[in-house]
Amino acid sequence: MNTTMQKISIEKVKTSKIDQVDFDNLDFGSVFTDHMLVCDYKNGAWETPKIIPYQPISLEPSAKIFHYGQSIFEGMKAYKDTENKIWFFRPLDNHRRLNISAKRMAIPEIPEAFFMEGLKALVKLDEKWIPQKDGSSLYIRPFIFASGKGFHASPADEYKFIICLAPSGSYFSGKVKVLIEEKYSRSANGGVGYAKAGGNYAGQFYPTQLAAQKGYSQVIWTDDNNHEYIEEAGAMNIFVRIGDTLITGPTSDRILDGITRKSILQIAEDEGIPTEVRKITVSEVVEAAKNGSLKEMFGAGTAAVVSPISTFGFRDVDYDLPELAESYATRLKKRITDIQFNRAEDPFGWRYGL
Amino acid sequence: MNTTMQKISIEKVKTSKIDQVDFDNLDFGSVFTDHMLVCDYKNGAWETPKIIPYQPISLEPSAKIFHYGQSIFEGMKAYKDTENKIWFFRPLDNHRRLNISAKRMAIPEIPEAFFMEGLKALVKLDEKWIPQKDGSSLYIRPFIFASGKGFHASPADEYKFIICLAPSGSYFSGKVKVLIEEKYSRSANGGVGYAKAGGNYAGQFYPTQLAAQKGYSQVIWTDDNNHEYIEEAGAMNIFVRIGDTLITGPTSDRILDGITRKSILQIAEDEGIPTEVRKITVSEVVEAAKNGSLKEMFGAGTAAVVSPISTFGFRDVDYDLPELAESYATRLKKRITDIQFNRAEDPFGWRYGL
Repeated sequence: MNTTMQKISIEKVKTSKIDQVDFDNLDFGSVFTDHMLVCDYKNGAWETPKIIPYQPISLEPSAKIFHYGQSIFEGMKAYKDTENKIWFFRPLDNHRRLNISAKRMAIPEIPEAFFMEGLKALVKLDEKWIPQKDGSSLYIRPFIFASGKGFHASPADEYKFIICLAPSGSYFSGKVKVLIEEKYSRSANGGVGYAKAGGNYAGQFYPTQLAAQKGYSQVIWTDDNNHEYIEEAGAMNIFVRIGDTLITGPTSDRILDGITRKSILQIAEDEGIPTEVRKITVSEVVEAAKNGSLKEMFGAGTAAVVSPISTFGFRDVDYDLPELAESYATRLKKRITDIQFNRAEDPFGWRYGL
Repeated sequence: MNTTMQKISIEKVKTSKIDQVDFDNLDFGSVFTDHMLVCDYKNGAWETPKIIPYQPISLEPSAKIFHYGQSIFEGMKAYKDTENKIWFFRPLDNHRRLNISAKRMAIPEIPEAFFMEGLKALVKLDEKWIPQKDGSSLYIRPFIFASGKGFHASPADEYKFIICLAPSGSYFSGKVKVLIEEKYSRSANGGVGYAKAGGNYAGQFYPTQLAAQKGYSQVIWTDDNNHEYIEEAGAMNIFVRIGDTLITGPTSDRILDGITRKSILQIAEDEGIPTEVRKITVSEVVEAAKNGSLKEMFGAGTAAVVSPISTFGFRDVDYDLPELAESYATRLKKRITDIQFNRAEDPFGWRYGL
């Protein structure tokens, strides 16, 4: 892998479009900043990344992204503290995971310098776009896709690595009701579930639409063998609190190794909360809901941060979670966002200053 | 679904590039004809398709195809007989399957008229591109992908349906050695394996690369639970002949309902070949190879037509298939291509004249 890199070139916009943006009413990921980073893979090597005005991409109709779903992405955020200093959260972990996804999807890995220097240069250039309203943030989307052409079902010979930035509001609005799914599945043993591969997401859309028709905003996936174990929710990992113990499933080749997931686990341990990482059966969650020992369920992910689940549905029965005065979700969300926004000490070394 | 359609507009190229093509040395799917069909889905409806010169597609960086793999495709061929009449093979089945894939991937279904009229108009316009050399054909690639934008992991609001044409040689060159895979998997129960969804293909690339390093050109996938049953080969369905019986696995939510597969089955029955559609265990195939009752294995698919397998590998042992003077593969391939090229009667009503 070529890891030497020339200086990133920057072509600035003539006129910023930032004044057209209503920063008080941001959706998630629907407004984009003035610039983007683009890096091409050609002739067996990644070329020097360049920053250019945010603009359309032109591709051959036979580009393999259209036909064979060869694409991966990451989700990150940039945070601005009260002194206008900019922070990332564990960005090297995103780079590492992007390359884990790349390997599984037969996409050439991206050198750390290309990723990190590109990320920093782009966010620095568009730093005015980082929202400062509570609950908002600058969502960062690095992605790689197959731009090489041809209808043969084999890896492409050319790729594009792009980073776009989207000032964003919350991923979920309102309460989060989830459905425990028993018919459809997200991933196979030996499949690509642990990769942030595009196709993992499209496959969830239809079952999620069916769940939405019943009033649920997300599906909780279970294993495809017997639908016996809770896995993840597609856009977030899942935590359950039974009694005083916080439990989440182990990562595997079916479950994404979430950065928020592992951070929440570490914070919980640091706070003295009893944690367990083990397979969670659907039946124990239902049983715990019935006998009152199920105190909380929440999702954890970069986009969703920590999203408390108000209700879960299983086999046509809705189980409401209690509203606790002092929930783990609230406590853990405060602790992680305080670290992210530089409002608290970071004993874990997770903050990464721009 | 809006099924009324205005007349398809046609914008022709000023100069054809057909003279630049070496029709005697065609790869598979790497040369494209002068024109393409494009049909946009916007504001909840498919717009009238148009035929335009083959050209790049321009998309927003946030188009969902890049991020969430929301794409499907079909593979078809057009054949020219000795009197220069053009034929399709069961094209309505491709349309039907495209919509089955569309439903599973939360993509709006395409009306039959849009598909069939678009297909016919495009192939008619570029009919000079249909190769007439034996073993070559005009490969047709209809595909739909999410062009709507935004980083929210949910179905797009805009799509493109495109048809491209590629005069093509054989999909495989030389003997086909396959590896029975026991670690990686192609699809999950309740997943999207039965859909021709882009992500199903990219997920196979890495395991196929690993197999290629050992000298195999394709992987035969097995179920993800116990790797006990033979499923399909990704680019083709699999048939095995044990004794005189031709066997293929049943379609399911994990296995593509191949049009060549079901045609081969019907031809075999018509020819009095004993057939079975049932789950095939890996162990029975290995056992049959050892005791000499395994006579043939072959793949069947639009791109690969009927591809005899010369060797299969399993747990570091290679099993060579015998070379038969009168194989089912040769007989069935001749019968299906004779029907496709209008060299024989078509008692099944599969040919569809342009």
